[in-house]
Amino acid sequence: MEAIQSVRLDDENSCLVLLDQTLLPNEKVFFRLSTVEEIWEAIYHLKVRGAPAIGIAAAYGVYLGVKKSEAASFAELSEEFAKVKQYLASSRPTAVNLFWALQRMEDRLKAEADQTVDDIKQAMKEEAEAIRAEDEKVCLAIGEHALSLLEPGWGLLTHCNAGTIATAKYGTALAPMYLGQERGYDFRVYADETRPLLQGARLTAWELQEAGVDVTLICDNMASIVMQEGKVQAVLVGCDRVAANGDTANKIGTSGLAILAKHYGIPFYVCAPTSTIDLNCATGADIPIEVRKSEEITTQWYEQPMAPPNIKTYNPAFDITDHSLVTAIITEKGIIREVTGTARFLSNH
Amino acid sequence: MEAIQSVRLDDENSCLVLLDQTLLPNEKVFFRLSTVEEIWEAIYHLKVRGAPAIGIAAAYGVYLGVKKSEAASFAELSEEFAKVKQYLASSRPTAVNLFWALQRMEDRLKAEADQTVDDIKQAMKEEAEAIRAEDEKVCLAIGEHALSLLEPGWGLLTHCNAGTIATAKYGTALAPMYLGQERGYDFRVYADETRPLLQGARLTAWELQEAGVDVTLICDNMASIVMQEGKVQAVLVGCDRVAANGDTANKIGTSGLAILAKHYGIPFYVCAPTSTIDLNCATGADIPIEVRKSEEITTQWYEQPMAPPNIKTYNPAFDITDHSLVTAIITEKGIIREVTGTARFLSNH
Repeated sequence: MEAIQSVRLDDENSCLVLLDQTLLPNEKVFFRLSTVEEIWEAIYHLKVRGAPAIGIAAAYGVYLGVKKSEAASFAELSEEFAKVKQYLASSRPTAVNLFWALQRMEDRLKAEADQTVDDIKQAMKEEAEAIRAEDEKVCLAIGEHALSLLEPGWGLLTHCNAGTIATAKYGTALAPMYLGQERGYDFRVYADETRPLLQGARLTAWELQEAGVDVTLICDNMASIVMQEGKVQAVLVGCDRVAANGDTANKIGTSGLAILAKHYGIPFYVCAPTSTIDLNCATGADIPIEVRKSEEITTQWYEQPMAPPNIKTYNPAFDITDHSLVTAIITEKGIIREVTGTARFLSNH
Repeated sequence: MEAIQSVRLDDENSCLVLLDQTLLPNEKVFFRLSTVEEIWEAIYHLKVRGAPAIGIAAAYGVYLGVKKSEAASFAELSEEFAKVKQYLASSRPTAVNLFWALQRMEDRLKAEADQTVDDIKQAMKEEAEAIRAEDEKVCLAIGEHALSLLEPGWGLLTHCNAGTIATAKYGTALAPMYLGQERGYDFRVYADETRPLLQGARLTAWELQEAGVDVTLICDNMASIVMQEGKVQAVLVGCDRVAANGDTANKIGTSGLAILAKHYGIPFYVCAPTSTIDLNCATGADIPIEVRKSEEITTQWYEQPMAPPNIKTYNPAFDITDHSLVTAIITEKGIIREVTGTARFLSNH
């Protein structure tokens, strides 16, 4: 058993195979998508989630779109490419990785302007495969660096889903757990269920169990007792953005975990591709926090409403963990131990 | 609008009026119970919950049971009493307050041995009413002491349900919120939903909203961000047991809140009737923690399972908050500020 690869090309490059994350954990369905429209739908309906996974799916979407083109020249192919790109970009208008991947495909297209149409199509496939392969390499490198900080038999706590299904393979915070599994580290993983959207229960618990990792699901408010009882030797989380001073934005609840870890003397590690480090953000205070609708707390998933009608809620999707609470930020380029030196670390790499 | 009284005698003392807590927050149904069997069912099926409320319901059950008796002598009445007591005691075999209330009814019965059967029946009613009235007084006194520590306009955070529906009236941790509401304190209350059983969402949010209190429901993992954003000036929780050194057992998640409060410099108050202080427990380590079934985390409330089949869970119902994290324990007899001096405080009262 090993980490699932949830976004990949198959059938002699004629379709994208995608794990439908909306059906997890009750159904494990791999879709085979061969049209741009199907891929647009999959991104729009969150069948694929996780910034890297969305970017990879879009890149494959571009390739599958131009592959069927009957264009006879670069100019004609370019025109069709532009339509496909614009269409896919509209599937998830706030997903930065989506635009990044589409732009990278366009840059490659332009670089191949003097090639034949067939060669350009082949280049589109290569570029999409490169985006996927590079993400897998980044995850693997994060996993290796993280694993160097961990010891066999440790209990590890994680939050939300920074796993294989959100990336090309391995994930970020879960990468060392998969590598440890391959190498007999016998980790015991505790997965916070992660209210309100339950990514920990539905996705993290599922993918680690599928890979044979020893995983125990807990409610978010049980993190303190598992630390108190000595069950956890390190906390590993992913992140959405890192500010220049090392403050990190991640799924709601992360900052509380960091405070608990500090109280109990447990190291708190943030696993972050360098692409998530935003030097234009001076501190966490510059990172906007998305506040989402009440229904996620009061009614979503439930057979009947779990709160009185019209109850006021506060539903921030992320919180900011102060850099003083972060033991280290683990990137594909290495480990940033003095977290306040994030900017300096990057300039040395 | 004021605090609901969810366990009371009515209809010229012929029935117990009980709020069905299992239907909250979707239906507000007051049952009228006139037989011992109905009251047994209500306790067994958790229609009434909260230690004081269970004790009160059982005491009224005894009264309603003996009231209909056709016994002609104390000896005959005693025999019937014993059957009713034994029967009601079997409704919730782990509820300490249930046995305490039944024993108190028996003590009163014996004290009335030389009275007429009618007078004894009247004494049973008096004793049940006294149990209810005393609990209300205890809650009011806790509320007054707690309110003396709070200022108008404050944001208050609470966890689980230590409210009016768990007691005769007012609750413990929620008592100062009701008193503040009566006196124009304009508190803004944040209620943790309290996974897995959602007592915060289903009960606390409901009862505070019913009373017109400004209440905002959050997920448990949002406590850190509301503190970080300056929305909370004090945390108030109930408790199940206090050890002699001031360690307290309360609903799972409480210890984490106490750690967060300390980190953010926010006072953390435990509201506890002196009856919950157990001097036979030296420290929190002597308090056993009940571990409950997986289904509460994985399937209960949900339309479909929210975790993979056979996932391992850890579901402790309570945790221990170290006395060093407790700013004060608020009892009906006064405020224990030096929490390590719990035993000494009690010996002075």
